[in-house]
Amino acid sequence: MSPHDDRSEKEDDVISAPASSGDQPISSLLIIIAMQTEALPLVTKFQLVEDESSVFPKGVPWVRYHGKYKDMDISLVWPGKDLTLGVDSVGTISAAIVTYASIQALHPDLIINAGTAGGFKAKGASISDVFIASEVAFHDRRIPIPVFDLYGVGLRQAFHTPNLVNELSFKVGKLSTGDSLDMSQQDESAIIANDATVKDMEGAAVAYVAEMLKVPSIYIKAVTDIVDGDKPTAEEFLQNLMAVTAALDLAVTQAVDFINGKSLSEL
Amino acid sequence: MSPHDDRSEKEDDVISAPASSGDQPISSLLIIIAMQTEALPLVTKFQLVEDESSVFPKGVPWVRYHGKYKDMDISLVWPGKDLTLGVDSVGTISAAIVTYASIQALHPDLIINAGTAGGFKAKGASISDVFIASEVAFHDRRIPIPVFDLYGVGLRQAFHTPNLVNELSFKVGKLSTGDSLDMSQQDESAIIANDATVKDMEGAAVAYVAEMLKVPSIYIKAVTDIVDGDKPTAEEFLQNLMAVTAALDLAVTQAVDFINGKSLSEL
Repeated sequence: MSPHDDRSEKEDDVISAPASSGDQPISSLLIIIAMQTEALPLVTKFQLVEDESSVFPKGVPWVRYHGKYKDMDISLVWPGKDLTLGVDSVGTISAAIVTYASIQALHPDLIINAGTAGGFKAKGASISDVFIASEVAFHDRRIPIPVFDLYGVGLRQAFHTPNLVNELSFKVGKLSTGDSLDMSQQDESAIIANDATVKDMEGAAVAYVAEMLKVPSIYIKAVTDIVDGDKPTAEEFLQNLMAVTAALDLAVTQAVDFINGKSLSEL
Repeated sequence: MSPHDDRSEKEDDVISAPASSGDQPISSLLIIIAMQTEALPLVTKFQLVEDESSVFPKGVPWVRYHGKYKDMDISLVWPGKDLTLGVDSVGTISAAIVTYASIQALHPDLIINAGTAGGFKAKGASISDVFIASEVAFHDRRIPIPVFDLYGVGLRQAFHTPNLVNELSFKVGKLSTGDSLDMSQQDESAIIANDATVKDMEGAAVAYVAEMLKVPSIYIKAVTDIVDGDKPTAEEFLQNLMAVTAALDLAVTQAVDFINGKSLSEL
């Protein structure tokens, strides 16, 4: 690695502080949510306000809502609507960039990536179940060259939160991430190899960036559709989105209330 | 969009400057290359040196080589080796993040994304051919919901360089991007729908970020393997990587020599 100038040293001190202060109460929480429908109820619940002066470069569609909730500064970042097409900027690429830019701007102690997901009934998932991911990996990055294959899968542990899981009775399962809402045969094989119970479009990308910048991250995913069921994913997803979002937002609120006042090592 | 603070206004002035100065000679060029094997010959050719003080945050593996070549400041950014696995950080996610971070730090007038690619003989590609992409799109982001489907495909025009293409006799073709080295049946259908001649793992991700931050970008891709041929992609890719890299680096050098002294509108 290259040596670094003063500025990046200073930035790094802030970023790496949480890792060395696991006994301090968490004071800065970053919540990353891909869809506006999922995000807005939490904005209301935590009484967050949209930034007047963006911490992000001019021109990007990313939106940060922030505020003080109990003892924590909460930032909820949503990648916004695609500038050309007007739909939510879902998927790994925008999730990765907003995670990167948010960590640089906000230096959070902890990241929560929350969202809806597909679930596998063969692994015990039902509609509206809320899962905490134990680990995350990709299922659509096939690079059949030794070691590159592992890089493609990108398996990472989520931050371990045994007390939160026990207290709130969340289900725990492995999360597999890909950029498609549907599932090809190759995706399915990779998801089985990943031993995943839930499937989303952002988690492993957030984890890649969070690990690189040494910020602990957890993943709360609520099941909108049963991937190994009878119904087409897109139809089931849209049908259940509103109702399952309510379950997701309740779960995130419970998690945030649990986290408040605790240190990383108490989670 | 939100109003912005002074800092992001200032950053944006620098970023958006190129768009309003298409008649000035290009002075700052950013070359993004995913693999070290592809990057190092160009570092030597342009006599670039690795940054002593990184413009990137501490802890990331990204490497910037820079220097003055003829009348231009050239930065060549390579996403580096994966911190855990030691292989080149290929694929859309790291390409997108380094493009974002490099634009923020360097404010280039023009981006060249160069690299090796798979080619389709049915569309006229042969091993060692060098293509300039006319447009780029994704082939592994299937979201079968109206408008989200278009977002997933992410079709974007590359910056139009008719004079460069004519002068250097590059082939021109459409580029399709995905995170797998191999090609599933679904990928193939999407690549055909994208009407692509070459297939890579970074281009459309670089284009997404470059367009968002309003920096013109071009794509130079050299064919290491014939996707619709008899040989397994990974084997053919590794077999041809060194030889084709020489063709790629020659092409990038010719392109940079052509660009030198010219404005965007003269390309």
